[in-house]
Amino acid sequence: MRLATLRLDENGTTVAVRVDGDTLTHFDGFPDVGAVLRADALDQVTSAGGQQEALDENRLAPVIVAPQKIICVGLNYRNHIREMGRDLPEFPTLFTKYPESLIGPRDQIQLPPESNAVDWEGELALVVGKTVRRASPEQAAEAIAGYSVLNDVTMRDWQYRTPMWFQGKAWENSTPIGPVFVTPDELPADAVMTTRVDGEIVQQTPINDLVFDSAALISYISTIFTLNPGDVIATGTPGGVGHARKPQRYLTAGQTLSTTVDGIGELVNVAVPEQA
Amino acid sequence: MRLATLRLDENGTTVAVRVDGDTLTHFDGFPDVGAVLRADALDQVTSAGGQQEALDENRLAPVIVAPQKIICVGLNYRNHIREMGRDLPEFPTLFTKYPESLIGPRDQIQLPPESNAVDWEGELALVVGKTVRRASPEQAAEAIAGYSVLNDVTMRDWQYRTPMWFQGKAWENSTPIGPVFVTPDELPADAVMTTRVDGEIVQQTPINDLVFDSAALISYISTIFTLNPGDVIATGTPGGVGHARKPQRYLTAGQTLSTTVDGIGELVNVAVPEQA
Repeated sequence: MRLATLRLDENGTTVAVRVDGDTLTHFDGFPDVGAVLRADALDQVTSAGGQQEALDENRLAPVIVAPQKIICVGLNYRNHIREMGRDLPEFPTLFTKYPESLIGPRDQIQLPPESNAVDWEGELALVVGKTVRRASPEQAAEAIAGYSVLNDVTMRDWQYRTPMWFQGKAWENSTPIGPVFVTPDELPADAVMTTRVDGEIVQQTPINDLVFDSAALISYISTIFTLNPGDVIATGTPGGVGHARKPQRYLTAGQTLSTTVDGIGELVNVAVPEQA
Repeated sequence: MRLATLRLDENGTTVAVRVDGDTLTHFDGFPDVGAVLRADALDQVTSAGGQQEALDENRLAPVIVAPQKIICVGLNYRNHIREMGRDLPEFPTLFTKYPESLIGPRDQIQLPPESNAVDWEGELALVVGKTVRRASPEQAAEAIAGYSVLNDVTMRDWQYRTPMWFQGKAWENSTPIGPVFVTPDELPADAVMTTRVDGEIVQQTPINDLVFDSAALISYISTIFTLNPGDVIATGTPGGVGHARKPQRYLTAGQTLSTTVDGIGELVNVAVPEQA
């Protein structure tokens, strides 16, 4: 099953929709996919009938508009770690961002005037479906609601100002997520994540190259604190970011960033100078 | 003015209260101090009359039960930075924790079975009172609602497992905040922050030793994203943490951690083994 969150007006009113091909079916009473998950209503939406309309990708909001938690994982692709000459990590590296960072799958990425080094990090986004604390591997696997695509767009100059990356990761209106949420059966085991800048492939890696997979991440993170339905875990980015290139490359105004995971869909976001 | 958040029952129902000496006045309709700030009702609560009762510190909840954002500042006391032989930083180091970490001013600190290195970090907590983005120094000063006391209790072994500190900072039921929220006029310019373990002073520093003061922090952080009323900024800890001692010292079961800032009050929290 594929779900999305549709904007209904200019005031931020949204509704969760089921996506069947190019047809959307409204799931009234649920303002976003997060609300569906918090109400444990995934089964209900499978067959629910409601107002239908044709898919207009430009009207899609972040699939989960305001996750209580957005936890990001660093250094989680084997190929990237090995190409950097590092050993595989024993533990996942974790940091956070706030819902204010999220934008829809066709929204513009705001290039803030304070940064000269805005970079891409295509990622598989894992969405939590149950309330879990200290989840065993089995409980963690059951707590996987599904997946989406996210680009952890990063202001590298701010990321490396201090020892903690957070301030380069949390800029407002910089992190596309979507276009849809899919249940796990929609995601092929050999799915490939691809990031493109103006059509040029800059990152391309199978998601099964992750060091810590979905269940491992939920189990580890829930050891520290409770995870709840609708929480998002950005599972990490593979090699190919602009900052690691020689010469270094960053997003510039007018460039189109595309982020795709097979079986889920594509984010298409144009970078624009933020109007301060 | 001094405000607090009072527990009314075992189900988590709370109410904001004004604290006048040992007398509490209920401010009905406002479940916590965060709700007062989000409603811009500080002026209203100054003179509001309501049900009164005597202060019972054991019934105090976290002053702000669920801040949208809890942003922590690292490396912000000159004396601590200098004693470590470092240069003063050009930018504040930022990381986060979630509301699940917060406990009341007399609640027990849960020592998780997964950590053997639970340490103290007494801090002045700055509470935001206005919605601001890219606040000028003047706007930032006006966005200070007031202050509280916080102890950023840290699982050092988890903090240093990976390059990012977050996973050592975000443990559930580990971070006392309170006992009260005070408006800025209640905080002496020469206030001293003191941390004690079983009565022994382990940290003691004047808060005016901060490298980045309240207005500077609000201005800097709001450059990155919007701050809202009720958001909490933990302003950093001075020297004297257990991890930096020789030999290293950590909290053990049964020890009492006390954290005081002159003009605000004292947190008194006993460390207990978490019942897993």
